[in-house]
Amino acid sequence: MMNAEIISVGDELLIGQVVNTNASFIGGLCSSLGIRVQYTTTVGDCKSVILDAFRLAWERNDIVLVTGGLGPTHDDITRDAVITFFNTSLVFSEEVFGDIKDFLARLNRDADNANRDQAMVPVDCTPIRNMDGTAPGMHFQRDGKHFFVMPGVPSEMKGMMSGYIAGVLASLGENTRSTVTLMTTGIPESLLANRIRGVEQFFSAASLAYLPSPLGVRLRITAEAESLLQAETTLATVKEFIYNRAGEYIYAENERPLEEVTGELLRQRGGWLAVAESCTGGLLADKITNVPGSSDYFERGAIVYSNRSKTELLDVPEGMLAQYGAVSREVAMAMAEGIRLKSGADFALSTTGIAGPGGATDTKPVGLVWIGFSSAETTYAVDHYLGNDRLRTKTRAAQLALDTLRRHLLGLPILFPTELRMQS
Amino acid sequence: MMNAEIISVGDELLIGQVVNTNASFIGGLCSSLGIRVQYTTTVGDCKSVILDAFRLAWERNDIVLVTGGLGPTHDDITRDAVITFFNTSLVFSEEVFGDIKDFLARLNRDADNANRDQAMVPVDCTPIRNMDGTAPGMHFQRDGKHFFVMPGVPSEMKGMMSGYIAGVLASLGENTRSTVTLMTTGIPESLLANRIRGVEQFFSAASLAYLPSPLGVRLRITAEAESLLQAETTLATVKEFIYNRAGEYIYAENERPLEEVTGELLRQRGGWLAVAESCTGGLLADKITNVPGSSDYFERGAIVYSNRSKTELLDVPEGMLAQYGAVSREVAMAMAEGIRLKSGADFALSTTGIAGPGGATDTKPVGLVWIGFSSAETTYAVDHYLGNDRLRTKTRAAQLALDTLRRHLLGLPILFPTELRMQS
Repeated sequence: MMNAEIISVGDELLIGQVVNTNASFIGGLCSSLGIRVQYTTTVGDCKSVILDAFRLAWERNDIVLVTGGLGPTHDDITRDAVITFFNTSLVFSEEVFGDIKDFLARLNRDADNANRDQAMVPVDCTPIRNMDGTAPGMHFQRDGKHFFVMPGVPSEMKGMMSGYIAGVLASLGENTRSTVTLMTTGIPESLLANRIRGVEQFFSAASLAYLPSPLGVRLRITAEAESLLQAETTLATVKEFIYNRAGEYIYAENERPLEEVTGELLRQRGGWLAVAESCTGGLLADKITNVPGSSDYFERGAIVYSNRSKTELLDVPEGMLAQYGAVSREVAMAMAEGIRLKSGADFALSTTGIAGPGGATDTKPVGLVWIGFSSAETTYAVDHYLGNDRLRTKTRAAQLALDTLRRHLLGLPILFPTELRMQS
Repeated sequence: MMNAEIISVGDELLIGQVVNTNASFIGGLCSSLGIRVQYTTTVGDCKSVILDAFRLAWERNDIVLVTGGLGPTHDDITRDAVITFFNTSLVFSEEVFGDIKDFLARLNRDADNANRDQAMVPVDCTPIRNMDGTAPGMHFQRDGKHFFVMPGVPSEMKGMMSGYIAGVLASLGENTRSTVTLMTTGIPESLLANRIRGVEQFFSAASLAYLPSPLGVRLRITAEAESLLQAETTLATVKEFIYNRAGEYIYAENERPLEEVTGELLRQRGGWLAVAESCTGGLLADKITNVPGSSDYFERGAIVYSNRSKTELLDVPEGMLAQYGAVSREVAMAMAEGIRLKSGADFALSTTGIAGPGGATDTKPVGLVWIGFSSAETTYAVDHYLGNDRLRTKTRAAQLALDTLRRHLLGLPILFPTELRMQS
């Protein structure tokens, strides 16, 4: 297997101003093409440090992928470092300049001198075309090794990676590894580990990693073997083992989001969904509408931050709000039923809780969230305790609401977190 | 200035399954304490590679900060690598075990053998207490250099970084650098650069970086000098220069989000806000309610994905929808005015557009978004063209809606993107 290193250039990455999502994207693509990423390294906008990183990476890997520092401004010095590193010189490329002019024309702009300079490329590299910006990429080949340079702007990097570079890497990678990620939600890591106890029997041929997040625990299974077919067979065995023991918690594979799964289930049913949100404040609807085509099954959402809006938009009785408080089983059920009846939707979800940091009472702590569900047949609400971080509570509550819908549409039992904890 | 390297351990980072937000957090904290981060390096769960990374980092830096691979499961090998690296051995720590037992007690759980093993710490390190998990951190000091090891779980890492480690670093850092980030929105990078032309005169003493994102362009100014006071003076001069030329586009400094700014403006006014969202699908309300205490000024949101809901919840006339279509100036204005009147709020925002990929017509391309505003005095809507990426369009539209409110509350002129483009 060929080894690769990803080098990201930019002070903004080192001082924490920008999160390095480029390295994840490149790493993911390399892995899927059978290239092993050994290192990712980030360095600042300093030529000598960049050169040191180039030398080390070139020595210890077959493939080096560099992003960042290719823009037209003074702080962009990667091209200069590349020229020194490969001891080469620049030449004007008509083809690259044509791409730059075409790109600018789409923005109703003309090329200036800075753009003309961007069309200067090292004489012994293959320029990589940039359809989303003005800086070309570069591909050097020496002694069977490959050195790629891309801009740091994510859309420009992605265009080059998914196009030209993926083509080169696909021809280099030899894939004898098979991997899958099982997306679970509604069960904590420790209880999930209990459920699938015994999976260790496969660890000579496969590995398993637990990746917890507020959306749930992802299980990454990787099998490596003499051949791809053998790896895939092992993977299928491990998968089956886990599905048999924890299948109801697995909503998807390979990073597919829950809102896509529920969207597809609704589409299959021809069912309409409406949501009434208090503590999630719009996040639930936001996730639902992130899915292209969601207008085919999502009717409306009501974000009812005030008691008045709960009564006006959802018909929650004022007396109920006074008697039980807005964060209660009764109000969660009334919200779900109210939006379902008002909208004419087939299914409705509701959230009401105390996201914090303020708003707690003696009996209702920060993190208490009621999730409500309503259909023509049934209306119910379940309480959850989601911790004391406002944004994490919103995220977990929206995910639990979607999972409530998934479980209903698949005929799975209602999840009661307290019962789940008692099983352990 | 002392130099630092951040080492992240974990296959999941290399293959792109998890984005390395830990490195940004640590980098940001180091910078603010006057420590220069020179490198961040990511390696997989392989002991020999981890050891190589330790050796190189220890050789070229004064401070090394390691995260990840400290959990109780088989794939966590960082502690083992640390023991080899420092040629030391483990000893049971009653104090660490007490912390672990306390932590588990809060989850109603008892310590098991795996937890007991986690209380084994290298004999010559200072254990770093973990209040959010079971794995202790470690602090080694040798020859004036520092080596810190933390778990990879972000909340556990943050607890250690913000507490014990920040204390150590604060005593080591000598800060003669001053930096600020100006958060702009509503103006593209190239036009912003035109506006502040002349800023180059300060580049001997300060540097300027453009950081574009769908939320706007951030301008990071950094001044470094003999003394902190001198650096701060330079910074203030550059800041003033930029504020004088582009002040109306600067909504905040240092990563403060726009929804916090508009929230504070509403709170000062005692004004109530309501929103009616079509194409943003809940994202606008989600952002508004991310701010703690937003229930003091946010009354309600309506997510009106169907024509029926636009009519029922916002009183948008059916005839208007038929005549102009849901994506139109008329409907955007009617939505904003409708939710304002229905809710009794003082200010209202609306969004209606074509987020794509479907839904475009000959006259209405994907990316067309109308942003509406309504108050007792005025109601208007402005059109924007936000590109062909669904999530980016939602993000940009929600940000533009918030900026419309900010501009109104500050008495700034309405932003017309076409006029802005013509100025260039």
